[in-house]
Amino acid sequence: MSHPIITLLTDFGTKDHYVASMKGVILGINPGCTLVDISHQVKPRDIQEAAFLLANVFASFPKWTIHLSVVDPGVGGPRRPILIVTSNYYFIGPDNGLFTLSFLREKVKQVFVLTKKKYFLSPVSSTFHGRDLFAPVAAYLSMGIRPQAFGHETDSWESLNTPRPKQKGKELQGKILHIDAFGNLISNMDEASLLKFAGIHSFSIQIGRQRMYGLKKGYWEGKKGEMIALIGSGGFLEISVRDGNAQKKLKAKRGDKIRVRFIEEVG
Amino acid sequence: MSHPIITLLTDFGTKDHYVASMKGVILGINPGCTLVDISHQVKPRDIQEAAFLLANVFASFPKWTIHLSVVDPGVGGPRRPILIVTSNYYFIGPDNGLFTLSFLREKVKQVFVLTKKKYFLSPVSSTFHGRDLFAPVAAYLSMGIRPQAFGHETDSWESLNTPRPKQKGKELQGKILHIDAFGNLISNMDEASLLKFAGIHSFSIQIGRQRMYGLKKGYWEGKKGEMIALIGSGGFLEISVRDGNAQKKLKAKRGDKIRVRFIEEVG
Amino acid sequence: MSHPIITLLTDFGTKDHYVASMKGVILGINPGCTLVDISHQVKPRDIQEAAFLLANVFASFPKWTIHLSVVDPGVGGPRRPILIVTSNYYFIGPDNGLFTLSFLREKVKQVFVLTKKKYFLSPVSSTFHGRDLFAPVAAYLSMGIRPQAFGHETDSWESLNTPRPKQKGKELQGKILHIDAFGNLISNMDEASLLKFAGIHSFSIQIGRQRMYGLKKGYWEGKKGEMIALIGSGGFLEISVRDGNAQKKLKAKRGDKIRVRFIEEVG
Repeated sequence: MSHPIITLLTDFGTKDHYVASMKGVILGINPGCTLVDISHQVKPRDIQEAAFLLANVFASFPKWTIHLSVVDPGVGGPRRPILIVTSNYYFIGPDNGLFTLSFLREKVKQVFVLTKKKYFLSPVSSTFHGRDLFAPVAAYLSMGIRPQAFGHETDSWESLNTPRPKQKGKELQGKILHIDAFGNLISNMDEASLLKFAGIHSFSIQIGRQRMYGLKKGYWEGKKGEMIALIGSGGFLEISVRDGNAQKKLKAKRGDKIRVRFIEEVG
Repeated sequence: MSHPIITLLTDFGTKDHYVASMKGVILGINPGCTLVDISHQVKPRDIQEAAFLLANVFASFPKWTIHLSVVDPGVGGPRRPILIVTSNYYFIGPDNGLFTLSFLREKVKQVFVLTKKKYFLSPVSSTFHGRDLFAPVAAYLSMGIRPQAFGHETDSWESLNTPRPKQKGKELQGKILHIDAFGNLISNMDEASLLKFAGIHSFSIQIGRQRMYGLKKGYWEGKKGEMIALIGSGGFLEISVRDGNAQKKLKAKRGDKIRVRFIEEVG
Repeated sequence: MSHPIITLLTDFGTKDHYVASMKGVILGINPGCTLVDISHQVKPRDIQEAAFLLANVFASFPKWTIHLSVVDPGVGGPRRPILIVTSNYYFIGPDNGLFTLSFLREKVKQVFVLTKKKYFLSPVSSTFHGRDLFAPVAAYLSMGIRPQAFGHETDSWESLNTPRPKQKGKELQGKILHIDAFGNLISNMDEASLLKFAGIHSFSIQIGRQRMYGLKKGYWEGKKGEMIALIGSGGFLEISVRDGNAQKKLKAKRGDKIRVRFIEEVG
């Protein structure tokens, strides 16, 4: 790889030295590697949130970027460390469902269980595989070591149970998957499903007791403080408040229901 | 450019994947580029705060650094995306006044409105120009594409209304422009104006009901808990509390008044 | 140096531009340098916390990494700026005890007081030596300038008074040195001392009114919400709550006592 990139996504926070430990190990193996932080502020042990972030960002990176994700409540336990080769990227992390949402958008080619100790630090602590196991594997992979060298292939891996939108009569029901730092509420209803469901009909969007009609194009539409619905940058239906914070206004939380309904044309 | 640098300044926060999306796009176009974060913790839509940070940091970077700033409440709306060439740097971002304070210190040479779609991602979302428009333009610029290739030149751009110190008789009145993470209160009164105003006279500095006499050299001067005035690292009058937090002690906020007054010599 | 690395550890926070100012200066001198953040969220002026982080991370980096640490409440005052050469690394920062804990693990070879103004920015502000003095020295050092060029050698430097575990009869008493973002309580009792103390005996660990028996291998052991003791990734005894937060559960704070006691075998 001429310009290898490794991204890092963890729940380690940025106040401690844990992320830097991983970076030090990687640069000790491959000093020419470019490191990019995705986020380290995933809530502790929140695999679902990490899965959402990864699914929304991985494809912005160049082909063969190595996406290293360590949200790993089972570290040191029976969960397996894995390396996944897809059509365009590498993913490395614990086999706990972190990659579920990404693989709705990216074809998995091969999955390897990481077992070859020569590519780990020695000894491997039982509390910090990010530093002792995942970081060195990512670094060696970025040096051109072939994926099959790190362990044996497997054809099964863990998936999260991710909520998908459900159609009930004239209603499409979805859920809030993620709330971003602006307080925007990002749902699991993608643009294509929405348009397919609504067809030529106008539709309303309801969350809590708030109802909106149709979609806006951008955050700047509507009056100051108005709640609007739009398709966000990840391609999903999103609720926003012009110059405000939808999460605070609605006291919304992840998992809250969102409903899209036809409006019957009269005549 | 042999070692191109792109800095990033946004209000995206660090918990979401948005900044990483921009970085992925940039590295996909120019993998040899060095990326430096200025801050992503500008308060949402706070153009004034971003303008302050940028004005205080841009000149610490080597010549021809590309300063990419995306605090962009009007994304997708009528505001124009621009590229500014100054005597020493490039600035890229929305034309909403973000660069006002920097241009008090740096001569603008040419301003271009970004219109050439071949340098954008396709399609451009109406909610995330940071990723789809500004990031790729910065990356292509760092590859050596000439500024005029990205759009047409303009001779007008937006400015913020930035408060300037006012002299009223024996008083120079300024305002708090920024409060940093230590709680230091940074004013809009620069050292040169202050010295010109005070001349050979001694002076007092007043904020709220607190009065200080003369300037200290550094944060370590004064007794523990004492409030002091000094010239901060950006060249502006600053209020600080030794081993404490001036913002908390005074319950100060941005925009609060600060007054400098002559002390008449007797005899 | 073919791939020079400079790490940065400060109490500057990430909301302001201060860290970026240092990076701009470094890249202006050595554009080929790799910059890695350790943390910028050390509590303001908390030398003890910075010392802990540095001691736990420095050795994860490749040989001759330059560790630049600026937690510097005495900036501009009489405290000395220093450069330390150890067997494997360089350390740069104010001489205020920041390096104390690292030097329990790494042999100091030479210490230089930074006095040569040609390697500083000009003028040097009295409030921001991170940008004006430490950053350029680190950058020139990464270019291959020899340590002795930056000033004169000294054979004394400041140390923090760091609490060490004490044995009192059948009890080994330690303290909480650090609380991480997961709420894990990390003590000053290292694995070797613990094993030497306990010998063949079983032992209990007590903090506040909570008592635990023996050590677990990893965070995943125990029932949900159970408090466990284990050896953490830095080699020290650590208290954790399975899928929870030990700090919150115990309302623990740094400096709290932790006790290890023999359990007498009957018969």
